[in-house]
Amino acid sequence: MAKDLERLLSDRARLRGTGGVVGGLSRRHDEAIPLHYGYPYPDSYPLEDLSRAAAQSILEDGPEAINYGGAELAEVFEGLVLDRLAVRGIACDSDRVLITSGSSQAINLVCSVFVDIGDKVLVEAPSYMGGLNSFRNFGAEMIPVEGDALGIRTEELGAMLADWRARGETMPKILYSITNFNNPSGCTTCAPRRGELLELAREYGFLILEDDAYGELRFEGEDIPCLGASDEDGSVIHVGSMSKILAPGVRLGWAVATPEIIRRLNVHKADGGTSPLARTVVGGYLQETDLDARLETLREGYRVRRDAALEALEAYMPDGCSWTRPEGGYFVWLTVPAGLDSDDMLEEMAEEGVKPLSGRQFYCDGRGAENFRISYSYPDPEDIRRGIEIMARVIRRRLEG
Amino acid sequence: MAKDLERLLSDRARLRGTGGVVGGLSRRHDEAIPLHYGYPYPDSYPLEDLSRAAAQSILEDGPEAINYGGAELAEVFEGLVLDRLAVRGIACDSDRVLITSGSSQAINLVCSVFVDIGDKVLVEAPSYMGGLNSFRNFGAEMIPVEGDALGIRTEELGAMLADWRARGETMPKILYSITNFNNPSGCTTCAPRRGELLELAREYGFLILEDDAYGELRFEGEDIPCLGASDEDGSVIHVGSMSKILAPGVRLGWAVATPEIIRRLNVHKADGGTSPLARTVVGGYLQETDLDARLETLREGYRVRRDAALEALEAYMPDGCSWTRPEGGYFVWLTVPAGLDSDDMLEEMAEEGVKPLSGRQFYCDGRGAENFRISYSYPDPEDIRRGIEIMARVIRRRLEG
Repeated sequence: MAKDLERLLSDRARLRGTGGVVGGLSRRHDEAIPLHYGYPYPDSYPLEDLSRAAAQSILEDGPEAINYGGAELAEVFEGLVLDRLAVRGIACDSDRVLITSGSSQAINLVCSVFVDIGDKVLVEAPSYMGGLNSFRNFGAEMIPVEGDALGIRTEELGAMLADWRARGETMPKILYSITNFNNPSGCTTCAPRRGELLELAREYGFLILEDDAYGELRFEGEDIPCLGASDEDGSVIHVGSMSKILAPGVRLGWAVATPEIIRRLNVHKADGGTSPLARTVVGGYLQETDLDARLETLREGYRVRRDAALEALEAYMPDGCSWTRPEGGYFVWLTVPAGLDSDDMLEEMAEEGVKPLSGRQFYCDGRGAENFRISYSYPDPEDIRRGIEIMARVIRRRLEG
Repeated sequence: MAKDLERLLSDRARLRGTGGVVGGLSRRHDEAIPLHYGYPYPDSYPLEDLSRAAAQSILEDGPEAINYGGAELAEVFEGLVLDRLAVRGIACDSDRVLITSGSSQAINLVCSVFVDIGDKVLVEAPSYMGGLNSFRNFGAEMIPVEGDALGIRTEELGAMLADWRARGETMPKILYSITNFNNPSGCTTCAPRRGELLELAREYGFLILEDDAYGELRFEGEDIPCLGASDEDGSVIHVGSMSKILAPGVRLGWAVATPEIIRRLNVHKADGGTSPLARTVVGGYLQETDLDARLETLREGYRVRRDAALEALEAYMPDGCSWTRPEGGYFVWLTVPAGLDSDDMLEEMAEEGVKPLSGRQFYCDGRGAENFRISYSYPDPEDIRRGIEIMARVIRRRLEG
């Protein structure tokens, strides 16, 4: 007799089902220009330096390097993360930081510690599908908060919260936002709205999960202090990662929060510790690397690509299309005229040689049919131009058809 | 105003608290002989081979090696895991296997997918504290099933299950067992009991989580097919790991189950994929390594250490003490005369130069005061002898005092 899995499943797993898994897929390339990859461009991976660092670090650190806790270079890595957080305006001790397997694990741990089935979680709309999937995994009731060119709309959020309170409704536990160069919109929450967000979190007692994956990659304009740097009452759980400034495949990220929250995240981590091998190799690599110089190079690499994307959008997109203008990060968010369906165009685009992502997976409520996420992070500028030209051709054809 | 964390916590986090975290600790050595480390002995780490493999693999596999999915060597690693599972009698395709960050993550994922607060989980008693903590994290009601020299006591288990059914009680969802060389007892479940376990799982519709961390490390007697190899109706989730046969710090393990269960575990994994860096480095290493020869060397290394432990126990322990006689793995389980308290002796033992673990953390119900886990895996044989001599001296003093 086959197992009665329905009886055995947890409520969250039964509710979740098995759709929409993101991450961990093999990188099958085909001929289409990849505007769907949210990864660093291949030339940016410091393969030789990492290779040398890996060889040296394992030998230098000895057996404990590949034991549970790691040895000296694993600690060096943690120290360098603290240094980097200080540069971002977050001065903190190690009891406020947890090293995780990418920021994905950090987001998942926040769900473990805070989210029960049916709990209200506010999510910037649109927002990163990996984040949304984590909330889905824990059965959260996700409520979208609109974003625009100036970031998450705090005025609307404030009105909604006041209304909920007035009506005695259950208040939200968490707000999830990518404050810098949002995935997928590329937009950044401006300074006044950041202040208002923190004020609302204080007033209504929720936590802000600030996903700062792209914060170091501003190539235009002035940095705005992240929420984690301005937090005064423990409202913010700030997560970051090596994925976009070094390589996703090292799977190293971090969460910054109050010591009590960090302790609780650590209890639920229960994974035997974040890869000592990765911490050792990356610790050794960073020790020998001028990270500031590397970041300058990356910013220039992404600026050139962003420019190629914006120029191509301007040159090729038909009337009625609009797009965002990111000052950093990886993504432009394209809106096509009402009535078109981005999902519906993906196959034709792929056949003609380009793969963007459709907008739907970035909303918790089924919207996004009029949107594409264009990642300019991975291809070279000429491919970005060609890819967007092809997208424009397909969109134009649909408009004319 | 400080956050009202109590309101924000998930039920499971509130229930769990912050006690008893295991794993990820730095390896602070002192002078005491470490009989508490459940790690491979330092000489066994193939540092030079791993170092060389790391350097070559990263260069050879190119940028995709350190991107989200990994490249060829990451797939090579997965293929070699399948080959190894076939050696263990588990012939399966890749849709039945999930690569995880150590078996710890695999155990945690099983909880995610199957365990709600209050669900009944059967745990071999005594059992691995990391496993117990994962069940605790999800609020399981753990029910001990006694183990003895022949492994988990299936007759008692069968009677308990029949009684529950007769009384209309909620039935358990999962049974957790380390079938080979149990951590901490060192005992192995014999073949007849394995058959009975599978029969009970079929009859009562629960899953068996078989933790096979030590299965490859039999240095005496005949291998007994693991439950994963004998499973005919999808009752078994088998988990394994590179931790004990290569190094814990690579954080690579796996779960084997039905394709449906694997899909569900993968949905709740949500960590961006298991470290491509680690899979690449270990894939490259294994490709150049005669793993069978390595395992022979390890088995001999552990046999010599086990012998040293048993000889010292025989030579030094006072009357009234008894201990297990493992045929593989890492651990001997010592029982001291009733009335003594192992927790209470740890400090004195450390002062005199030895650190075992007390038995309490291996039970879900507070027992274990009369037990020590002695790991012979890490120190050299002479230190094992000296360490056990010191333990015996302290125990004798307590008995005489």
